[in-house]
Amino acid sequence: MSTRAQYLCTASFLLGLVASAPALAQGEPALLGFSGPHATQERALEARFDAKVSSEEMRGWLEQLSSAPNHVGAAHDKANAEFLLQKFKAFGFDAKIETFEVLYPTPLSESLDLLGPSPYHAALREPPMAGDRTSTQTDHALPPYLAYQGDGDVTGDLVYVNYGMPEDYEALERLGVSVKGKIVIARYGQGWRGLKPQLAEEHGAIGALIYSDPADDGYGQGDVWPKGPHRPPASVQRGSVQKMMIYPGDPLTPGIGAVAGAKRLSRAEAKTLLKIPALPISYADAKPFLEALKGPEAPAAFRGGLPIAYHVGGSGETSVHLAVKSDWSLKTIYDVIAVMKGKGEPDQWIIRGNHHDGWAFGAEDPLSGQVALLEEAKAIGELARTGWKPKRTLVYASWDAEEPGLIGSTEWAEAHADELKAKAVAYVNSDSNDRGFFEAEGSHALQTLVNQVADDVADPEKGVSISARMRANLRVKALAPRASEDVKREAALAKSGAELPLAPLGSGSDYSAFLQHLGVASLNIGFGGEGSSGGVYHSIYDSYDHYIRFGDPGLSYGAALTRTGGRLMLRLADADLIPMRFAPVAEAASLYLAEIKALNTRMADGDKVIADLRVDHGFELASDPQAPVAAPPLKPATVKLDFSPLEQAISRLSASASAFDAAYAAHGEGLAQKRATDLDAALVKMEHGLTAPEGLPGRPWFQHLLYAPGVLTGYGAKTLPGVREAIEGRRFEEAATYIRLTARTLNAYSDQLDTAKALLSPTP
Amino acid sequence: MSTRAQYLCTASFLLGLVASAPALAQGEPALLGFSGPHATQERALEARFDAKVSSEEMRGWLEQLSSAPNHVGAAHDKANAEFLLQKFKAFGFDAKIETFEVLYPTPLSESLDLLGPSPYHAALREPPMAGDRTSTQTDHALPPYLAYQGDGDVTGDLVYVNYGMPEDYEALERLGVSVKGKIVIARYGQGWRGLKPQLAEEHGAIGALIYSDPADDGYGQGDVWPKGPHRPPASVQRGSVQKMMIYPGDPLTPGIGAVAGAKRLSRAEAKTLLKIPALPISYADAKPFLEALKGPEAPAAFRGGLPIAYHVGGSGETSVHLAVKSDWSLKTIYDVIAVMKGKGEPDQWIIRGNHHDGWAFGAEDPLSGQVALLEEAKAIGELARTGWKPKRTLVYASWDAEEPGLIGSTEWAEAHADELKAKAVAYVNSDSNDRGFFEAEGSHALQTLVNQVADDVADPEKGVSISARMRANLRVKALAPRASEDVKREAALAKSGAELPLAPLGSGSDYSAFLQHLGVASLNIGFGGEGSSGGVYHSIYDSYDHYIRFGDPGLSYGAALTRTGGRLMLRLADADLIPMRFAPVAEAASLYLAEIKALNTRMADGDKVIADLRVDHGFELASDPQAPVAAPPLKPATVKLDFSPLEQAISRLSASASAFDAAYAAHGEGLAQKRATDLDAALVKMEHGLTAPEGLPGRPWFQHLLYAPGVLTGYGAKTLPGVREAIEGRRFEEAATYIRLTARTLNAYSDQLDTAKALLSPTP
Repeated sequence: MSTRAQYLCTASFLLGLVASAPALAQGEPALLGFSGPHATQERALEARFDAKVSSEEMRGWLEQLSSAPNHVGAAHDKANAEFLLQKFKAFGFDAKIETFEVLYPTPLSESLDLLGPSPYHAALREPPMAGDRTSTQTDHALPPYLAYQGDGDVTGDLVYVNYGMPEDYEALERLGVSVKGKIVIARYGQGWRGLKPQLAEEHGAIGALIYSDPADDGYGQGDVWPKGPHRPPASVQRGSVQKMMIYPGDPLTPGIGAVAGAKRLSRAEAKTLLKIPALPISYADAKPFLEALKGPEAPAAFRGGLPIAYHVGGSGETSVHLAVKSDWSLKTIYDVIAVMKGKGEPDQWIIRGNHHDGWAFGAEDPLSGQVALLEEAKAIGELARTGWKPKRTLVYASWDAEEPGLIGSTEWAEAHADELKAKAVAYVNSDSNDRGFFEAEGSHALQTLVNQVADDVADPEKGVSISARMRANLRVKALAPRASEDVKREAALAKSGAELPLAPLGSGSDYSAFLQHLGVASLNIGFGGEGSSGGVYHSIYDSYDHYIRFGDPGLSYGAALTRTGGRLMLRLADADLIPMRFAPVAEAASLYLAEIKALNTRMADGDKVIADLRVDHGFELASDPQAPVAAPPLKPATVKLDFSPLEQAISRLSASASAFDAAYAAHGEGLAQKRATDLDAALVKMEHGLTAPEGLPGRPWFQHLLYAPGVLTGYGAKTLPGVREAIEGRRFEEAATYIRLTARTLNAYSDQLDTAKALLSPTP
Repeated sequence: MSTRAQYLCTASFLLGLVASAPALAQGEPALLGFSGPHATQERALEARFDAKVSSEEMRGWLEQLSSAPNHVGAAHDKANAEFLLQKFKAFGFDAKIETFEVLYPTPLSESLDLLGPSPYHAALREPPMAGDRTSTQTDHALPPYLAYQGDGDVTGDLVYVNYGMPEDYEALERLGVSVKGKIVIARYGQGWRGLKPQLAEEHGAIGALIYSDPADDGYGQGDVWPKGPHRPPASVQRGSVQKMMIYPGDPLTPGIGAVAGAKRLSRAEAKTLLKIPALPISYADAKPFLEALKGPEAPAAFRGGLPIAYHVGGSGETSVHLAVKSDWSLKTIYDVIAVMKGKGEPDQWIIRGNHHDGWAFGAEDPLSGQVALLEEAKAIGELARTGWKPKRTLVYASWDAEEPGLIGSTEWAEAHADELKAKAVAYVNSDSNDRGFFEAEGSHALQTLVNQVADDVADPEKGVSISARMRANLRVKALAPRASEDVKREAALAKSGAELPLAPLGSGSDYSAFLQHLGVASLNIGFGGEGSSGGVYHSIYDSYDHYIRFGDPGLSYGAALTRTGGRLMLRLADADLIPMRFAPVAEAASLYLAEIKALNTRMADGDKVIADLRVDHGFELASDPQAPVAAPPLKPATVKLDFSPLEQAISRLSASASAFDAAYAAHGEGLAQKRATDLDAALVKMEHGLTAPEGLPGRPWFQHLLYAPGVLTGYGAKTLPGVREAIEGRRFEEAATYIRLTARTLNAYSDQLDTAKALLSPTP
């Protein structure tokens, strides 16, 4: 579908459901799912909500919650759960702590040494820093560590694998360098952390190091802490390397809640655990290792920001000793669950979540989002105290153990799976929050709702709506000389005034179990792009002192997140009809299909170019004999696929979605109660219609056929994932299978929509 | 014209002039301008030529010529001229030295200091280096210096201006930083060195520093000397900052030869001299200055490879003292001119040149090219000794004073302008030469000749022709993820087997006066892309020891250059008809026109996007209040130009060129002597037909309307320069004027071609 078509379609909708409602206050745009008079009331309620939001209160909570290390198992993590529990109770919620017993390793010992003529013993510690008060508490903090690495004591030759992604291994192969039996050092970036040791392991490496290169994450980005916000030389990014793209959550209890007494896999049976030892290191620690490397000079794409000539090593001249040993006992985690029962539809749940565990002090990640969620619950509690009650049930969750693998949210969702499938209308997630621009990802059925909310929240710095500011930013970004086609397309939409598309959800926060496992419509929201607290991501310097200087000094964007999340919750809870629209789902699917068709063509064309070059010995002729580069490895030839089942299904979906949306806009208002209840029940099930029980190839836990975290991106989303990843991996039979499965699923989804539309027919 | 059309056109030509000649030896392709039997003789001659080429001889000359500093005025520069003179004479050439008296400043004193709390005194010296024997001779070498900077003693606040190009000043303006009354520090790269202080001066700066950033020219490119070939921390790139895009050569004698007693401008009258002092520095010297800068953080595009967070400065907190004083007396320069008179057409000259002056020892630049030229003259001399004589006159030139401003070649060309306009068939230039791929730029009338020569010279490393290797390299380069459209177009040509287009000539070596001032068809040839002697460009480490390790260890590419240059000279000298073809001229003009039309459209579209964003306050809304970036400066709106005069002229040229080429192929062989002489006379004048006496706007010395060095690129070529640069500079009336002038000139050129074609009519 062209941009223009999307614009017309969207613009006509904006006159939507309540356009003809005479009671609509002058100049106020419609609210999806609300009648005109109800929309006016809703806006008045939101104004009262806004008035209760206090940045100063959030600031105090942030300081308190981040005052001591709060990783899983830390005393302060449990204390924070109890603090949050008391708050929710005080706000009038029915709150409790749910615990799970999960596999969560903690380091017993770790060491890393460069052997040979110029030995170096890695520090593996982040020193206290002037101006960062909590940085002195290193006794209780988790040292630099990669949770779920494989433990071991290994010695081997070192190879620099750049970002450690598949294309890097291809480049190394072309240089004649193998990692088999060796230890790799990869830099953070490009793909998710956990893929780096995993791919190293798959290529035969015996150990893995991951470091933060200063070009990507250090002085190359600007002044370092404490002068500026960016990563100082000795700072280390901790993190999980659990294979979450197979399934997240407790590695021992896939698909079920890790309650006491649950049936558990052994560690050997769990598919999400690494086998090789791995450690994260700072760029101060990395420099002596990288400087010692010999072998071929690094290709241009491998060069980072250290003041050295990067080599890839692998020549047997740089020996390294790496040893890691962990405590693999089960640990208790603490989810805080707070419920405010709906007065009209108590069995329709609107769920809101943010995790509370960090890697050290976690001021930005996750507490900046957590305090905004808490402030949201407070303001809603105060509204409830004045007589208002939500029509649908509100569930606020503060998850534990997100950092090691989305564990708190996943175990809770798995434990309550049947109830959630029946009752959950939507899940709204947040996590780290910074000064800057509104960012939203998620289920496209909620796209119109999100756009309408973004039109109604003011940006703290500029006064205009967060939507207007986001649109300006997209348009300015599109001026960059190398702006991508995606950015240009979105900039054109931004200028046109049409709805801005939601980005698809991959992984990296607590929505995965809801969206991708259970098929609950989900959103992930936040602000960013100006504040720079991400410059100390997953280090002990992600502290209150850092956040208050560089993240969101006045917590004004904390308040903006509260106002945005609050509006989403209030509108989802109170709308006459669940506020969903389906043309954006069809538009997204159509765009994704166009992308994978183009990908298939591009791969086939590329194969031809490379095959011709092979025949002509072009790679040999172009190669420098003093720095030889071999031809790319041979790969299975690209099959040109028959996309027609998907084309037809998406064409049908476009028609069904437009028809449903038109009926919803024309006849939704004043629908008889029974019909409204039936329609809501149908809408609750819609997102589930985008899932298939078979799940994705090799990872049945992931059942959504429109969005998934990429097997080879980790956090990054893959859309139409069953088809796209099969094409990318040159598994063309699998691609054909998933074209059919996805088409069948989308056709069934269109059937659901058609059935739901019948409830909106004008004659009762 | 489409690529396909070009392919067909070229492929049909390859059957060209001698396709129907029955005497053509089996399997040997045609030689442009030669009859079949003569082509066979010519190839036999070239085989004898090849057999006389000795890399070992070149190696010895290289060691000798680079054994002491040889900048203008150095004793060894004059000694080298005399050495070359004796060689040419010994080879049987009629050789002499022509001298000129030119303005060439040399440093008397220079100093640079960072003032304030952490003072630093810049070293401004390149230390001796183990393994680089001549690097100890620092007493006689020219210290780091920018010839024709303006002298002065200034103190001011420092501003980092990135590459110092126009877009960098726009970025600074948007950050609120001015250089007025300040000293700038720019890094080498992106545009020609001389533009950096010139643009700084135009923006009101009082002094300028240029340094080599290690990302572009140092460890960011690989191991540094002496471990590897790249620039070590204390190494400095010297160079000229004369405003050569106004006119090159002696600043005091534009347009005339700087012979003793010539009428000279005063220094104040010369338009090509800077007014502000400037110095080049190393990255070791630059680091303390850049580290001391405050003010806004550098935009991403400004960040280099030093291990610091780059700031742009300009905040009044970093004071610098810079002082430079020069000796501005006239100096004598020594051009060596060696002639071998043609036995058939002595008044048709084929000229070959390479300079002999360097900045220090000049092993790569220029002596690697000089020894290949000398070897060429030697082999030709030996052919002459066995009875062969060229039909046309050969002129071999070893220029002095290229480095300060193409002075030796320019003064000689200006001194002999009338004779050259009448007699010069072609000028073939070379300069630095390295291991790698064949590279050729120049007049498109010579494109077919160059392609045919490249098919006949063997690559030393791979055995295939240098053309085949160049084609393979283009095709492999086009696989890069961000390969430009130009590279992709050339890769498609490379695969098709069609002629590869010559790149257009800008500036940077001794062809300028011939091509762009006098309108003599010119070429610039060489090898590169594998050898890395450019890693110590214009420093004392451009030494024999460096070149022999990293430039072209066995001088096998020196021999390849000899064989390539020699073939060009022999074929130009001996062909029955001057070997020119004009379809490539029309194709190049057509491509350039398409580019400037697209540019005009892109600018107009871009104006609209920015104007809309201004109206919507998009720049203000997107700007971070804590790091504000203003809207881009207002510029005159783009006028959509009427290109029809040029379209018509190029369409006509295509027709005239095809008709001429067809007649040349069909009827050139066996042309009556009188007709052949007349045709040659017409061909000698063709390139001059691409010039206009008005010259380019503001720089009448540059008269070629198809190729020029860019006013804002320096070395980089601008094609259809009168039109293109006016559009880029938003001077749309000037653009319209040059559309008309260029069209008129091209129409007259087509007239010339039509007249010449009449000489080829089958009926006498």
